[in-house]
Amino acid sequence: MKVAFQGEHGAYSEEAILQHFEGSAEPVPRPSLREVFQAVEGGEVDLGLVPVENTLEGSVVRTFDLLLESTLRVSAEVILRVVHCLIANPGVTIGDIKGVYSHPQALGQCRAYLESQGFEAVVAYDTAGSVKMLGERGLRDAAAIASGWAAEVYGMTVLARGIETHPENYTRFFVLGHEDHPPTGRDKTSIAFTVDHKPGILFRALRGFALHGVNLTKIESRPMVGRPWEYSFHMDFEGHRVEPHMHSALEELRTSTRFLKILGSYPRADNPLGPPAENR
Amino acid sequence: MKVAFQGEHGAYSEEAILQHFEGSAEPVPRPSLREVFQAVEGGEVDLGLVPVENTLEGSVVRTFDLLLESTLRVSAEVILRVVHCLIANPGVTIGDIKGVYSHPQALGQCRAYLESQGFEAVVAYDTAGSVKMLGERGLRDAAAIASGWAAEVYGMTVLARGIETHPENYTRFFVLGHEDHPPTGRDKTSIAFTVDHKPGILFRALRGFALHGVNLTKIESRPMVGRPWEYSFHMDFEGHRVEPHMHSALEELRTSTRFLKILGSYPRADNPLGPPAENR
Repeated sequence: MKVAFQGEHGAYSEEAILQHFEGSAEPVPRPSLREVFQAVEGGEVDLGLVPVENTLEGSVVRTFDLLLESTLRVSAEVILRVVHCLIANPGVTIGDIKGVYSHPQALGQCRAYLESQGFEAVVAYDTAGSVKMLGERGLRDAAAIASGWAAEVYGMTVLARGIETHPENYTRFFVLGHEDHPPTGRDKTSIAFTVDHKPGILFRALRGFALHGVNLTKIESRPMVGRPWEYSFHMDFEGHRVEPHMHSALEELRTSTRFLKILGSYPRADNPLGPPAENR
Repeated sequence: MKVAFQGEHGAYSEEAILQHFEGSAEPVPRPSLREVFQAVEGGEVDLGLVPVENTLEGSVVRTFDLLLESTLRVSAEVILRVVHCLIANPGVTIGDIKGVYSHPQALGQCRAYLESQGFEAVVAYDTAGSVKMLGERGLRDAAAIASGWAAEVYGMTVLARGIETHPENYTRFFVLGHEDHPPTGRDKTSIAFTVDHKPGILFRALRGFALHGVNLTKIESRPMVGRPWEYSFHMDFEGHRVEPHMHSALEELRTSTRFLKILGSYPRADNPLGPPAENR
Protein backbone atom coordinates (compact mmCIF):
# COMPACT_ATOMS: atom_id res chain seq x y z
CA MET A 1 0.00 0.00 0.00
CA LYS A 2 1.40 3.36 -1.08
CA VAL A 3 0.88 6.46 1.11
CA ALA A 4 1.86 9.92 -0.16
CA PHE A 5 3.24 12.64 2.16
CA GLN A 6 4.62 16.16 1.71
CA GLY A 7 8.38 16.55 2.06
CA GLU A 8 11.51 14.46 1.63
CA HIS A 9 12.32 10.99 2.97
CA GLY A 10 12.97 11.35 6.70
CA ALA A 11 10.26 14.01 7.21
CA TYR A 12 8.08 13.96 10.35
CA SER A 13 5.12 13.10 8.08
CA GLU A 14 6.94 9.95 6.96
CA GLU A 15 7.56 9.08 10.61
CA ALA A 16 3.79 9.44 11.19
CA ILE A 17 3.12 6.99 8.32
CA LEU A 18 5.52 4.45 9.85
CA GLN A 19 3.92 4.89 13.29
CA HIS A 20 0.37 4.50 11.99
CA PHE A 21 0.80 1.69 9.42
CA GLU A 22 3.51 -0.14 11.41
CA GLY A 23 5.65 -0.90 8.38
CA SER A 24 2.83 -2.11 6.09
CA ALA A 25 2.87 1.04 3.93
CA GLU A 26 5.33 2.40 1.38
CA PRO A 27 5.74 6.18 1.94
CA VAL A 28 5.80 8.23 -1.30
CA PRO A 29 7.25 11.78 -1.07
CA ARG A 30 5.59 14.71 -2.88
CA PRO A 31 6.86 18.31 -2.98
CA SER A 32 3.58 20.02 -1.92
CA LEU A 33 0.36 19.31 -0.04
CA ARG A 34 -1.61 19.86 -3.26
CA GLU A 35 0.45 17.13 -4.97
CA VAL A 36 -0.32 14.75 -2.08
CA PHE A 37 -4.06 15.30 -2.68
CA GLN A 38 -3.58 14.90 -6.45
CA ALA A 39 -1.60 11.65 -6.05
CA VAL A 40 -4.52 10.10 -4.12
CA GLU A 41 -7.21 11.56 -6.39
CA GLY A 42 -5.40 10.34 -9.52
CA GLY A 43 -4.86 6.83 -8.15
CA GLU A 44 -1.02 6.97 -8.15
CA VAL A 45 -1.11 6.06 -4.45
CA ASP A 46 -3.71 4.41 -2.20
CA LEU A 47 -3.77 7.00 0.59
CA GLY A 48 -2.26 10.32 1.64
CA LEU A 49 -1.18 11.64 5.04
CA VAL A 50 -1.33 15.41 5.68
CA PRO A 51 -0.67 17.59 8.77
CA VAL A 52 -3.74 19.24 10.31
CA GLU A 53 -2.50 21.01 13.44
CA ASN A 54 0.47 21.29 15.77
CA THR A 55 0.30 22.16 19.47
CA LEU A 56 2.95 24.90 19.16
CA GLU A 57 2.23 26.24 15.68
CA GLY A 58 -1.57 25.91 15.34
CA SER A 59 -3.70 24.75 12.42
CA VAL A 60 -2.38 24.02 8.94
CA VAL A 61 -4.68 26.35 7.00
CA ARG A 62 -3.53 25.02 3.62
CA THR A 63 -4.74 21.49 4.48
CA PHE A 64 -8.22 22.78 5.36
CA ASP A 65 -8.44 24.76 2.12
CA LEU A 66 -7.51 21.67 0.11
CA LEU A 67 -9.99 19.47 2.06
CA LEU A 68 -12.81 21.88 1.16
CA GLU A 69 -12.04 21.58 -2.58
CA SER A 70 -11.31 17.86 -2.64
CA THR A 71 -13.59 14.82 -2.89
CA LEU A 72 -11.25 12.82 -0.61
CA ARG A 73 -12.41 11.64 2.81
CA VAL A 74 -10.63 11.42 6.16
CA SER A 75 -10.20 7.75 7.13
CA ALA A 76 -7.90 8.07 10.17
CA GLU A 77 -6.16 10.54 12.48
CA VAL A 78 -2.56 10.11 13.64
CA ILE A 79 -0.94 11.98 16.54
CA LEU A 80 2.86 12.16 16.46
CA ARG A 81 5.02 13.40 19.31
CA VAL A 82 7.58 15.62 17.58
CA VAL A 83 11.02 14.82 19.05
CA HIS A 84 13.79 16.98 17.60
CA CYS A 85 17.23 15.33 17.33
CA LEU A 86 20.69 16.79 16.75
CA ILE A 87 22.06 14.78 13.80
CA ALA A 88 25.54 14.69 12.26
CA ASN A 89 27.79 12.56 10.06
CA PRO A 90 29.11 9.37 11.75
CA GLY A 91 32.22 10.06 13.82
CA VAL A 92 31.39 13.75 14.37
CA THR A 93 31.14 14.68 18.07
CA ILE A 94 29.29 17.53 19.82
CA GLY A 95 32.62 19.37 20.25
CA ASP A 96 33.18 19.48 16.45
CA ILE A 97 29.95 21.33 15.71
CA LYS A 98 29.79 25.01 14.85
CA GLY A 99 26.62 25.46 12.73
CA VAL A 100 23.24 23.71 12.98
CA TYR A 101 20.96 23.53 9.91
CA SER A 102 17.17 23.23 9.95
CA HIS A 103 13.82 24.79 9.10
CA PRO A 104 13.29 28.08 11.00
CA GLN A 105 10.40 26.55 13.00
CA ALA A 106 12.58 23.68 14.27
CA LEU A 107 15.49 26.06 15.00
CA GLY A 108 13.10 28.29 16.95
CA GLN A 109 11.74 25.34 18.92
CA CYS A 110 15.32 24.38 19.93
CA ARG A 111 16.67 27.91 20.48
CA ALA A 112 17.48 27.44 24.20
CA TYR A 113 19.52 24.29 23.46
CA LEU A 114 21.42 25.90 20.54
CA GLU A 115 22.28 28.95 22.67
CA SER A 116 23.40 26.84 25.64
CA GLN A 117 25.82 24.98 23.33
CA GLY A 118 26.99 28.12 21.51
CA PHE A 119 25.95 26.69 18.10
CA GLU A 120 25.16 29.01 15.20
CA ALA A 121 21.66 28.41 13.75
CA VAL A 122 21.60 28.18 9.94
CA VAL A 123 18.23 28.27 8.13
CA ALA A 124 17.34 25.60 5.58
CA TYR A 125 14.20 24.57 3.67
CA ASP A 126 13.30 21.61 5.77
CA THR A 127 14.39 19.32 8.55
CA ALA A 128 15.04 16.07 6.64
CA GLY A 129 16.56 17.96 3.69
CA SER A 130 19.19 19.41 6.06
CA VAL A 131 20.25 15.91 7.16
CA LYS A 132 20.45 14.77 3.53
CA MET A 133 22.59 17.81 2.59
CA LEU A 134 25.01 17.23 5.52
CA GLY A 135 25.48 13.64 4.39
CA GLU A 136 25.95 14.51 0.70
CA ARG A 137 28.54 17.19 1.50
CA GLY A 138 30.19 15.14 4.26
CA LEU A 139 30.30 18.20 6.55
CA ARG A 140 32.19 17.54 9.83
CA ASP A 141 31.69 20.87 11.60
CA ALA A 142 27.91 21.00 11.29
CA ALA A 143 24.75 19.22 12.44
CA ALA A 144 21.05 19.31 11.57
CA ILE A 145 17.81 19.25 13.56
CA ALA A 146 15.33 16.64 12.35
CA SER A 147 13.50 13.45 13.34
CA GLY A 148 15.44 10.42 14.55
CA TRP A 149 13.95 8.69 11.51
CA ALA A 150 15.81 11.11 9.19
CA ALA A 151 19.10 9.99 10.76
CA GLU A 152 18.23 6.33 9.97
CA VAL A 153 17.18 7.15 6.39
CA TYR A 154 20.44 8.95 5.55
CA GLY A 155 22.83 6.77 7.64
CA MET A 156 23.66 9.56 10.06
CA THR A 157 24.22 9.69 13.84
CA VAL A 158 21.91 11.10 16.52
CA LEU A 159 24.07 13.13 18.95
CA ALA A 160 21.22 14.39 21.16
CA ARG A 161 17.52 13.59 21.32
CA GLY A 162 14.63 15.74 22.57
CA ILE A 163 16.46 19.07 22.32
CA GLU A 164 13.21 21.11 22.00
CA THR A 165 12.37 23.73 24.63
CA HIS A 166 8.72 22.67 24.98
CA PRO A 167 8.27 18.90 25.11
CA GLU A 168 4.53 19.25 24.52
CA ASN A 169 5.03 19.30 20.78
CA TYR A 170 2.51 17.12 18.94
CA THR A 171 1.37 17.14 15.33
CA ARG A 172 -2.00 15.72 14.28
CA PHE A 173 -2.33 14.26 10.78
CA PHE A 174 -5.27 13.06 8.66
CA VAL A 175 -5.07 9.93 6.49
CA LEU A 176 -6.98 10.64 3.25
CA GLY A 177 -8.58 8.21 0.85
CA HIS A 178 -11.63 7.77 -1.37
CA GLU A 179 -13.77 6.61 1.55
CA ASP A 180 -13.88 7.23 5.27
CA HIS A 181 -13.77 4.46 7.92
CA PRO A 182 -16.63 2.14 9.01
CA PRO A 183 -17.81 2.58 12.63
CA THR A 184 -15.65 1.06 15.37
CA GLY A 185 -17.54 2.37 18.42
CA ARG A 186 -14.72 4.82 19.28
CA ASP A 187 -14.83 7.29 16.41
CA LYS A 188 -14.58 10.94 15.54
CA THR A 189 -16.17 12.92 12.71
CA SER A 190 -14.76 16.02 11.00
CA ILE A 191 -16.99 18.51 9.20
CA ALA A 192 -16.75 21.92 7.53
CA PHE A 193 -19.61 24.35 6.95
CA THR A 194 -20.36 27.97 6.17
CA VAL A 195 -22.99 30.19 7.77
CA ASP A 196 -24.23 33.73 7.29
CA HIS A 197 -22.71 36.38 9.54
CA LYS A 198 -25.50 37.15 12.01
CA PRO A 199 -25.97 37.03 15.80
CA GLY A 200 -26.69 33.62 17.27
CA ILE A 201 -26.03 31.69 14.06
CA LEU A 202 -23.28 29.51 15.56
CA PHE A 203 -25.39 28.94 18.68
CA ARG A 204 -28.23 27.67 16.43
CA ALA A 205 -25.77 25.55 14.44
CA LEU A 206 -24.55 23.86 17.65
CA ARG A 207 -28.06 23.26 19.04
CA GLY A 208 -28.52 19.81 17.51
CA PHE A 209 -25.18 18.60 18.85
CA ALA A 210 -26.00 19.77 22.39
CA LEU A 211 -29.51 18.25 22.29
CA HIS A 212 -28.21 14.90 21.06
CA GLY A 213 -25.30 14.82 23.54
CA VAL A 214 -22.56 14.96 20.89
CA ASN A 215 -19.17 16.01 22.27
CA LEU A 216 -17.23 18.70 20.41
CA THR A 217 -13.44 18.19 20.34
CA LYS A 218 -12.39 21.09 18.06
CA ILE A 219 -13.90 24.23 16.56
CA GLU A 220 -12.30 26.88 14.43
CA SER A 221 -13.80 29.71 12.41
CA ARG A 222 -12.21 31.29 9.37
CA PRO A 223 -13.36 34.42 7.57
CA MET A 224 -14.12 33.71 3.88
CA VAL A 225 -11.85 36.25 2.20
CA GLY A 226 -13.69 37.94 -0.69
CA ARG A 227 -17.06 36.81 0.73
CA PRO A 228 -17.35 39.23 3.63
CA TRP A 229 -20.75 38.07 4.89
CA GLU A 230 -19.71 34.45 5.32
CA TYR A 231 -17.67 32.47 7.79
CA SER A 232 -16.47 28.89 7.45
CA PHE A 233 -16.19 26.58 10.44
CA HIS A 234 -14.19 23.43 10.95
CA MET A 235 -15.34 21.11 13.71
CA ASP A 236 -14.53 17.69 15.10
CA PHE A 237 -16.96 15.62 17.17
CA GLU A 238 -16.83 12.36 19.05
CA GLY A 239 -18.95 9.71 17.29
CA HIS A 240 -19.49 8.27 13.80
CA ARG A 241 -21.69 9.95 11.19
CA VAL A 242 -23.88 6.81 10.86
CA GLU A 243 -24.72 6.65 14.59
CA PRO A 244 -28.33 7.80 15.07
CA HIS A 245 -27.59 10.69 17.46
CA MET A 246 -24.79 12.03 15.22
CA HIS A 247 -26.92 11.58 12.11
CA SER A 248 -29.76 13.58 13.71
CA ALA A 249 -27.39 16.33 14.86
CA LEU A 250 -25.87 16.61 11.36
CA GLU A 251 -29.32 16.74 9.70
CA GLU A 252 -30.34 19.54 12.09
CA LEU A 253 -27.09 21.37 11.33
CA ARG A 254 -27.81 21.14 7.60
CA THR A 255 -30.93 23.31 8.02
CA SER A 256 -28.93 26.24 9.45
CA THR A 257 -25.88 26.22 7.14
CA ARG A 258 -25.29 27.45 3.61
CA PHE A 259 -22.91 24.62 2.84
CA LEU A 260 -22.04 21.50 4.85
CA LYS A 261 -19.31 18.99 4.04
CA ILE A 262 -18.74 15.85 6.07
CA LEU A 263 -14.98 15.31 5.72
CA GLY A 264 -15.18 11.83 7.22
CA SER A 265 -15.60 9.58 10.26
CA TYR A 266 -12.61 7.65 11.56
CA PRO A 267 -11.32 5.82 14.66
CA ARG A 268 -10.06 8.30 17.23
CA ALA A 269 -6.37 8.16 18.14
CA ASP A 270 -5.28 7.74 21.72
CA ASN A 271 -3.52 10.99 22.25
CA PRO A 272 -2.41 13.57 24.77
CA LEU A 273 -4.64 16.22 23.17
CA GLY A 274 -7.87 14.71 24.44
CA PRO A 275 -9.24 12.90 27.47
CA PRO A 276 -7.51 9.62 28.34
CA ALA A 277 -9.14 6.77 26.43
CA GLU A 278 -10.13 4.75 29.50
CA ASN A 279 -12.24 7.62 30.85
CA ARG A 280 -14.11 8.51 27.67
CA MET B 1 5.11 57.32 21.64
CA LYS B 2 7.19 54.12 21.43
CA VAL B 3 5.66 50.92 20.02
CA ALA B 4 7.55 47.60 20.20
CA PHE B 5 7.31 44.94 17.47
CA GLN B 6 8.95 41.58 16.79
CA GLY B 7 11.58 41.52 14.05
CA GLU B 8 14.02 43.90 12.39
CA HIS B 9 13.43 47.36 10.97
CA GLY B 10 11.50 46.94 7.71
CA ALA B 11 9.36 44.03 9.02
CA TYR B 12 5.68 43.78 8.08
CA SER B 13 4.87 44.44 11.77
CA GLU B 14 6.67 47.77 11.53
CA GLU B 15 4.66 48.58 8.38
CA ALA B 16 1.50 47.84 10.42
CA ILE B 17 2.65 50.33 13.10
CA LEU B 18 3.21 53.02 10.46
CA GLN B 19 -0.21 52.31 8.89
CA HIS B 20 -2.07 52.42 12.22
CA PHE B 21 -0.31 55.33 13.96
CA GLU B 22 0.24 57.37 10.76
CA GLY B 23 3.76 58.43 11.66
CA SER B 24 3.03 59.44 15.27
CA ALA B 25 4.79 56.39 16.77
CA GLU B 26 8.42 55.35 17.02
CA PRO B 27 8.72 51.61 16.21
CA VAL B 28 11.08 49.70 18.54
CA PRO B 29 12.34 46.29 17.31
CA ARG B 30 12.58 43.30 19.66
CA PRO B 31 13.93 39.82 18.78
CA SER B 32 10.94 37.78 20.06
CA LEU B 33 7.23 38.13 20.81
CA ARG B 34 7.91 37.52 24.50
CA GLU B 35 10.32 40.47 24.53
CA VAL B 36 7.63 42.67 22.94
CA PHE B 37 5.28 41.81 25.83
CA GLN B 38 8.07 42.39 28.37
CA ALA B 39 8.99 45.77 26.88
CA VAL B 40 5.40 46.99 27.40
CA GLU B 41 5.00 45.37 30.82
CA GLY B 42 8.30 46.88 32.03
CA GLY B 43 7.47 50.37 30.75
CA GLU B 44 10.36 50.58 28.23
CA VAL B 45 7.77 51.34 25.52
CA ASP B 46 4.19 52.66 25.59
CA LEU B 47 2.56 49.97 23.45
CA GLY B 48 3.33 46.75 21.56
CA LEU B 49 2.02 45.42 18.25
CA VAL B 50 1.84 41.64 17.74
CA PRO B 51 0.51 39.42 14.91
CA VAL B 52 -2.65 37.44 15.71
CA GLU B 53 -3.61 35.66 12.48
CA ASN B 54 -2.90 35.57 8.76
CA THR B 55 -5.37 34.56 6.06
CA LEU B 56 -2.94 32.08 4.46
CA GLU B 57 -1.05 30.80 7.52
CA GLY B 58 -3.71 30.82 10.27
CA SER B 59 -3.49 31.87 13.91
CA VAL B 60 -0.29 32.83 15.69
CA VAL B 61 -0.52 30.38 18.60
CA ARG B 62 2.43 31.94 20.42
CA THR B 63 0.65 35.31 20.68
CA PHE B 64 -2.43 33.69 22.27
CA ASP B 65 -0.27 31.81 24.78
CA LEU B 66 1.46 35.05 25.78
CA LEU B 67 -1.88 36.93 26.01
CA LEU B 68 -3.17 34.32 28.47
CA GLU B 69 -0.16 34.82 30.78
CA SER B 70 0.07 38.60 30.47
CA THR B 71 -1.76 41.43 32.26
CA LEU B 72 -1.70 43.54 29.07
CA ARG B 73 -4.94 44.49 27.30
CA VAL B 74 -5.83 44.74 23.62
CA SER B 75 -6.48 48.39 22.73
CA ALA B 76 -6.72 48.17 18.90
CA GLU B 77 -6.72 45.79 15.95
CA VAL B 78 -4.81 46.50 12.73
CA ILE B 79 -5.32 44.69 9.42
CA LEU B 80 -2.40 44.86 6.99
CA ARG B 81 -2.56 43.72 3.37
CA VAL B 82 0.72 41.79 2.92
CA VAL B 83 2.23 42.86 -0.43
CA HIS B 84 5.46 41.02 -1.23
CA CYS B 85 8.07 42.99 -3.22
CA LEU B 86 11.19 41.87 -5.10
CA ILE B 87 13.96 44.10 -3.71
CA ALA B 88 17.58 44.57 -4.84
CA ASN B 89 20.50 46.97 -4.56
CA PRO B 90 20.09 50.20 -6.61
CA GLY B 91 21.10 49.72 -10.26
CA VAL B 92 20.47 45.95 -10.23
CA THR B 93 17.94 44.86 -12.89
CA ILE B 94 15.67 41.80 -13.09
CA GLY B 95 18.05 40.25 -15.65
CA ASP B 96 20.98 40.32 -13.17
CA ILE B 97 19.22 38.22 -10.55
CA LYS B 98 19.98 34.56 -9.91
CA GLY B 99 19.05 33.91 -6.26
CA VAL B 100 16.21 35.35 -4.17
CA TYR B 101 16.50 35.42 -0.35
CA SER B 102 13.60 35.39 2.11
CA HIS B 103 11.79 33.56 4.91
CA PRO B 104 10.46 30.18 3.72
CA GLN B 105 6.83 31.35 4.15
CA ALA B 106 7.36 34.37 1.87
CA LEU B 107 9.29 32.24 -0.67
CA GLY B 108 6.41 29.74 -0.63
CA GLN B 109 3.82 32.47 -1.14
CA CYS B 110 5.76 33.71 -4.22
CA ARG B 111 6.73 30.30 -5.63
CA ALA B 112 4.85 30.72 -8.95
CA TYR B 113 6.58 34.06 -9.63
CA LEU B 114 10.05 32.73 -8.73
CA GLU B 115 9.58 29.69 -10.98
CA SER B 116 8.28 31.79 -13.90
CA GLN B 117 11.44 33.95 -13.69
CA GLY B 118 13.81 31.00 -13.19
CA PHE B 119 15.13 32.43 -9.90
CA GLU B 120 16.64 30.15 -7.25
CA ALA B 121 14.95 30.48 -3.86
CA VAL B 122 17.37 30.85 -0.93
CA VAL B 123 16.04 30.52 2.62
CA ALA B 124 16.81 33.18 5.23
CA TYR B 125 15.63 33.99 8.76
CA ASP B 126 13.29 36.78 7.85
CA THR B 127 12.10 39.07 5.11
CA ALA B 128 13.51 42.44 6.24
CA GLY B 129 16.76 40.79 7.40
CA SER B 130 17.33 39.51 3.84
CA VAL B 131 17.08 43.05 2.45
CA LYS B 132 19.50 44.33 5.08
CA MET B 133 22.00 41.53 4.28
CA LEU B 134 21.83 42.22 0.50
CA GLY B 135 22.61 45.87 1.16
CA GLU B 136 25.46 45.17 3.61
CA ARG B 137 27.13 42.72 1.23
CA GLY B 138 26.34 44.81 -1.88
CA LEU B 139 25.21 41.70 -3.78
CA ARG B 140 24.42 42.43 -7.46
CA ASP B 141 23.18 39.00 -8.58
CA ALA B 142 20.55 38.52 -5.86
CA ALA B 143 17.28 39.98 -4.60
CA ALA B 144 15.08 39.57 -1.52
CA ILE B 145 11.34 39.28 -0.90
CA ALA B 146 10.04 41.69 1.75
CA SER B 147 7.74 44.67 2.29
CA GLY B 148 8.11 47.82 0.20
CA TRP B 149 8.82 49.51 3.53
CA ALA B 150 11.96 47.35 3.97
CA ALA B 151 13.31 48.72 0.66
CA GLU B 152 12.84 52.29 1.96
CA VAL B 153 14.47 51.53 5.31
CA TYR B 154 17.63 50.07 3.75
CA GLY B 155 17.84 52.37 0.69
CA MET B 156 17.13 49.55 -1.78
CA THR B 157 15.09 49.35 -5.00
CA VAL B 158 11.72 47.64 -5.55
CA LEU B 159 11.93 45.74 -8.87
CA ALA B 160 8.46 44.14 -8.71
CA ARG B 161 5.51 44.62 -6.36
CA GLY B 162 2.71 42.16 -5.47
CA ILE B 163 4.56 39.01 -6.59
CA GLU B 164 2.52 36.71 -4.28
CA THR B 165 0.40 33.92 -5.79
CA HIS B 166 -2.67 34.64 -3.63
CA PRO B 167 -3.43 38.35 -3.31
CA GLU B 168 -5.81 37.66 -0.41
CA ASN B 169 -2.95 37.79 2.07
CA TYR B 170 -3.84 39.81 5.18
CA THR B 171 -2.32 39.80 8.65
CA ARG B 172 -4.28 40.94 11.69
CA PHE B 173 -2.36 42.50 14.59
CA PHE B 174 -3.29 43.50 18.16
CA VAL B 175 -2.02 46.70 19.77
CA LEU B 176 -1.25 45.95 23.43
CA GLY B 177 -1.09 48.32 26.38
CA HIS B 178 -1.95 48.57 30.06
CA GLU B 179 -5.60 49.43 29.30
CA ASP B 180 -8.06 48.64 26.56
CA HIS B 181 -9.98 51.31 24.60
CA PRO B 182 -13.05 53.30 25.73
CA PRO B 183 -16.28 52.62 23.76
CA THR B 184 -16.60 54.23 20.31
CA GLY B 185 -19.91 52.65 19.23
CA ARG B 186 -18.11 50.45 16.65
CA ASP B 187 -16.08 48.07 18.79
CA LYS B 188 -14.97 44.50 19.18
CA THR B 189 -14.12 42.48 22.28
CA SER B 190 -11.65 39.58 22.55
CA ILE B 191 -11.92 36.98 25.29
CA ALA B 192 -10.31 33.66 26.27
CA PHE B 193 -11.86 31.02 28.50
CA THR B 194 -11.57 27.38 29.47
CA VAL B 195 -14.38 24.86 29.92
CA ASP B 196 -14.66 21.25 30.97
CA HIS B 197 -14.78 18.67 28.20
CA LYS B 198 -18.43 17.54 28.14
CA PRO B 199 -21.25 17.47 25.59
CA GLY B 200 -23.08 20.76 25.08
CA ILE B 201 -20.65 22.85 27.13
CA LEU B 202 -19.77 25.22 24.28
CA PHE B 203 -23.45 25.49 23.34
CA ARG B 204 -24.22 26.58 26.92
CA ALA B 205 -21.27 28.98 26.87
CA LEU B 206 -22.63 30.64 23.71
CA ARG B 207 -26.22 30.88 24.99
CA GLY B 208 -25.87 34.33 26.57
CA PHE B 209 -24.37 35.80 23.40
CA ALA B 210 -27.21 34.42 21.24
CA LEU B 211 -29.92 35.61 23.67
CA HIS B 212 -28.43 39.12 23.85
CA GLY B 213 -27.90 39.37 20.09
CA VAL B 214 -24.11 39.57 20.27
CA ASN B 215 -22.38 38.79 16.97
CA LEU B 216 -19.44 36.35 17.00
CA THR B 217 -16.60 37.20 14.59
CA LYS B 218 -14.05 34.51 15.52
CA ILE B 219 -13.90 31.31 17.53
CA GLU B 220 -11.07 28.88 18.01
CA SER B 221 -10.59 26.01 20.42
CA ARG B 222 -7.26 24.71 21.62
CA PRO B 223 -6.66 21.56 23.61
CA MET B 224 -4.87 22.30 26.91
CA VAL B 225 -1.85 20.05 26.62
CA GLY B 226 -1.16 18.31 29.91
CA ARG B 227 -4.70 19.10 31.13
CA PRO B 228 -6.61 16.54 29.07
CA TRP B 229 -10.12 17.36 30.37
CA GLU B 230 -9.95 21.02 29.49
CA TYR B 231 -10.22 23.10 26.33
CA SER B 232 -9.42 26.76 25.93
CA PHE B 233 -11.39 28.98 23.57
CA HIS B 234 -10.52 32.27 21.97
CA MET B 235 -13.41 34.39 20.73
CA ASP B 236 -14.02 37.82 19.26
CA PHE B 237 -17.40 39.55 19.36
CA GLU B 238 -18.84 42.76 17.97
CA GLY B 239 -19.51 45.26 20.78
CA HIS B 240 -17.74 46.78 23.80
CA ARG B 241 -17.51 45.00 27.15
CA VAL B 242 -19.22 47.92 28.95
CA GLU B 243 -22.34 47.87 26.70
CA PRO B 244 -25.24 46.38 28.70
CA HIS B 245 -26.00 43.48 26.30
CA MET B 246 -22.30 42.49 26.10
CA HIS B 247 -21.89 42.85 29.85
CA SER B 248 -24.89 40.56 30.46
CA ALA B 249 -23.61 38.00 27.94
CA LEU B 250 -20.15 37.97 29.56
CA GLU B 251 -21.63 37.60 33.07
CA GLU B 252 -23.70 34.65 31.85
CA LEU B 253 -20.60 33.14 30.23
CA ARG B 254 -18.69 33.45 33.51
CA THR B 255 -21.11 30.99 35.19
CA SER B 256 -20.30 28.19 32.70
CA THR B 257 -16.50 28.58 32.44
CA ARG B 258 -13.63 27.53 34.67
CA PHE B 259 -11.58 30.59 33.77
CA LEU B 260 -12.55 33.70 31.79
CA LYS B 261 -10.21 36.48 30.69
CA ILE B 262 -11.40 39.60 28.87
CA LEU B 263 -8.42 40.47 26.68
CA GLY B 264 -9.88 43.87 25.81
CA SER B 265 -12.41 45.96 23.86
CA TYR B 266 -11.19 48.11 20.98
CA PRO B 267 -12.43 49.94 17.86
CA ARG B 268 -12.96 47.49 15.01
CA ALA B 269 -10.80 47.94 11.91
CA ASP B 270 -12.38 48.34 8.49
CA ASN B 271 -11.09 45.27 6.82
CA PRO B 272 -11.69 42.67 4.14
CA LEU B 273 -12.06 39.92 6.73
CA GLY B 274 -15.45 41.10 7.95
CA PRO B 275 -18.63 42.65 6.62
CA PRO B 276 -18.18 46.01 4.88
CA ALA B 277 -18.39 48.81 7.45
CA GLU B 278 -21.34 50.59 5.81
CA ASN B 279 -23.53 47.50 6.17
CA ARG B 280 -22.72 46.65 9.73
